Amino acid sequence: MIITLLTDFGDMYPASMKGVILSIDPNANIVDISHSVLRHNVRAGAFMLMACARYFPSGTVHIAVVDPGVGTKRRAIAINAVPKDHGNHYFIGPDNGILIPAAKSVGKFEVYEITNKKLFNQDVSSTFHGRDIFAPVGAHISKGMDIADVGRRISDFVDLDFGKGKKMGNAVEGRVIFIDDFGNIVTNISSDLISFQPGDIMEIDKKSAVFQRSYGFCKHGEPLALIGSHGFLELAENQGSAANFFKKKQGDEIIIIRYP
Amino acid sequence: MIITLLTDFGDMYPASMKGVILSIDPNANIVDISHSVLRHNVRAGAFMLMACARYFPSGTVHIAVVDPGVGTKRRAIAINAVPKDHGNHYFIGPDNGILIPAAKSVGKFEVYEITNKKLFNQDVSSTFHGRDIFAPVGAHISKGMDIADVGRRISDFVDLDFGKGKKMGNAVEGRVIFIDDFGNIVTNISSDLISFQPGDIMEIDKKSAVFQRSYGFCKHGEPLALIGSHGFLELAENQGSAANFFKKKQGDEIIIIRYP
Amino acid sequence: MIITLLTDFGDMYPASMKGVILSIDPNANIVDISHSVLRHNVRAGAFMLMACARYFPSGTVHIAVVDPGVGTKRRAIAINAVPKDHGNHYFIGPDNGILIPAAKSVGKFEVYEITNKKLFNQDVSSTFHGRDIFAPVGAHISKGMDIADVGRRISDFVDLDFGKGKKMGNAVEGRVIFIDDFGNIVTNISSDLISFQPGDIMEIDKKSAVFQRSYGFCKHGEPLALIGSHGFLELAENQGSAANFFKKKQGDEIIIIRYP
Repeated sequence: MIITLLTDFGDMYPASMKGVILSIDPNANIVDISHSVLRHNVRAGAFMLMACARYFPSGTVHIAVVDPGVGTKRRAIAINAVPKDHGNHYFIGPDNGILIPAAKSVGKFEVYEITNKKLFNQDVSSTFHGRDIFAPVGAHISKGMDIADVGRRISDFVDLDFGKGKKMGNAVEGRVIFIDDFGNIVTNISSDLISFQPGDIMEIDKKSAVFQRSYGFCKHGEPLALIGSHGFLELAENQGSAANFFKKKQGDEIIIIRYP
Repeated sequence: MIITLLTDFGDMYPASMKGVILSIDPNANIVDISHSVLRHNVRAGAFMLMACARYFPSGTVHIAVVDPGVGTKRRAIAINAVPKDHGNHYFIGPDNGILIPAAKSVGKFEVYEITNKKLFNQDVSSTFHGRDIFAPVGAHISKGMDIADVGRRISDFVDLDFGKGKKMGNAVEGRVIFIDDFGNIVTNISSDLISFQPGDIMEIDKKSAVFQRSYGFCKHGEPLALIGSHGFLELAENQGSAANFFKKKQGDEIIIIRYP
Repeated sequence: MIITLLTDFGDMYPASMKGVILSIDPNANIVDISHSVLRHNVRAGAFMLMACARYFPSGTVHIAVVDPGVGTKRRAIAINAVPKDHGNHYFIGPDNGILIPAAKSVGKFEVYEITNKKLFNQDVSSTFHGRDIFAPVGAHISKGMDIADVGRRISDFVDLDFGKGKKMGNAVEGRVIFIDDFGNIVTNISSDLISFQPGDIMEIDKKSAVFQRSYGFCKHGEPLALIGSHGFLELAENQGSAANFFKKKQGDEIIIIRYP
């Protein structure tokens, strides 16, 4: 089965997770989502997992570890998420919210606390539960183990929510939930709130941008607003960084007004 | 079958392409060529694809997306390239030239315009055809679909050519076609134009460099000219960056003179 | 079988190694350990390989290439390393020490010089033995070829050793053997030399740090000493870089004193 990995571990550390996984499930097909999540940024990791998970086939096990609390009392959890139509997705990681938006985006979900030490590596380090707990648990689930074997079901998991943008007359208002590698600003304003038309002129913090369907409709360096590939309103700059241009960072409030 | 990916998408976005591919062809063996192509640099992507594609086995599907024109009227294409000896390679990507040098390097090739919307993802975004068009089309071809099912054959595709260096007495002349991660300067002067011998002293823009077979024959920080692993003349600096030393960038003209 | 890759090649070059491997062994499961080893830093590569190799299952072939001497007279080697309990690991790379600490960490090992040119790519470049020698040799071994077919057994290989820390009263003394992506300082002082307790106050170069089990027990930006996931004493800074704080680099001596 497919196992995806998302961490802020950078180099080398993901490889020992892969070794552990393949030692348990030699047929696992391991796919990296990212190992460059902004360090210790649980919300960025949660967004990236949410953005990618639903494109994987049913049965995929997603291991996501951005875990500043590793080795302390924060719990480890495993989630079974079931889409409306068919199949399911598994999510494995720390109980700090990183898995929740992705699980919600899939459908209904059940959360289990991981306590079954028989599943862990023989020596569990205090600093690398990705290798010693999450990787082996994910591999066992990938091999067919019942998720309920990880531990008891819980309902008091740590929640994480990106909120929702809202429409106010000729404007929409929301928050920056992610800045991608291109410097594109992703908001929590979903496409169904947007009635702007290509060519409309928008104002953001007294700067203007045109609403377009894609980058290539603008000149080099020109700012634009668009419905991005995640289904949310984004600010971009054709072949440039909107984050620099609009001086926005993750968590900032954003108001986008259409010029009359 | 094997599917290679080459993009300028950086982090996270390639993962959703992989999810789409594995949802269609669970047995696809996905290999990353690069996701760090210099942003929007179609020529750099074309060189990297050309440098790597021919090392993969017959039947490989190469998906390459450096695509500043995504969502505009630029076309999407699929190529079947056939080497002299046996087998074939498929190339999938935007019609901006990125696939052409690699296809030429394989052998004879046929180009098809991708228009069959049945192959696309259900909702095609305006900004991420890598995920919504190129990934599913590549996966269907990898699974055995006839390439002619993507759309009609065309001959007016966008061409891209790196040109050829030339020999002039005791000098060779050409252009910089790629700067690699080491700062090595790759030219379009192919090895068959070179009759220099190890130890020959070369002049480039009034700077001198020795011709050698490999880096280790030079002192730390010493510049050299050599036949690189792509079969072209390269300028390098042992454990340093030739691009910094010679102040050359992609597209620059380059003249290399052998001292008498 | 599984083939791991560890290089300082950065982008693109690892992909042609993968193409070569898959052309010989289409069933190879290729796992990247790292392609971002600090350029030409053989000791860093050796540490990373040692840190990861033992987590992979028996039969894994590890190809590691940090190779400033490529194309000169340095030899190419293949190693068969046998753990106490069962199975074995193969290591392929240049004879500059990069493979040795990993081979030692697995168990007893035999070294063979790679000289059998029938195994190499048709045209061997002078600068890219990763693609032209190490990749095809690794793939042949992965497919089941006897390691003795690469060439004769040797005993005068280049050794590489990280040394051992030592205990002196209320202090331990050793060297920095690796700085990871987080800026954590890994020493060669193994955990069995450590009798410090969580909460103990340590002094390093007149700076103090608390001994803890994990990062999360410290405040943001607070320095700590801990037994890291590699089984060695490490210096860290919670959500910061210990390398910056303690101004230490690879190879530096380090003395850690427990306050009475």
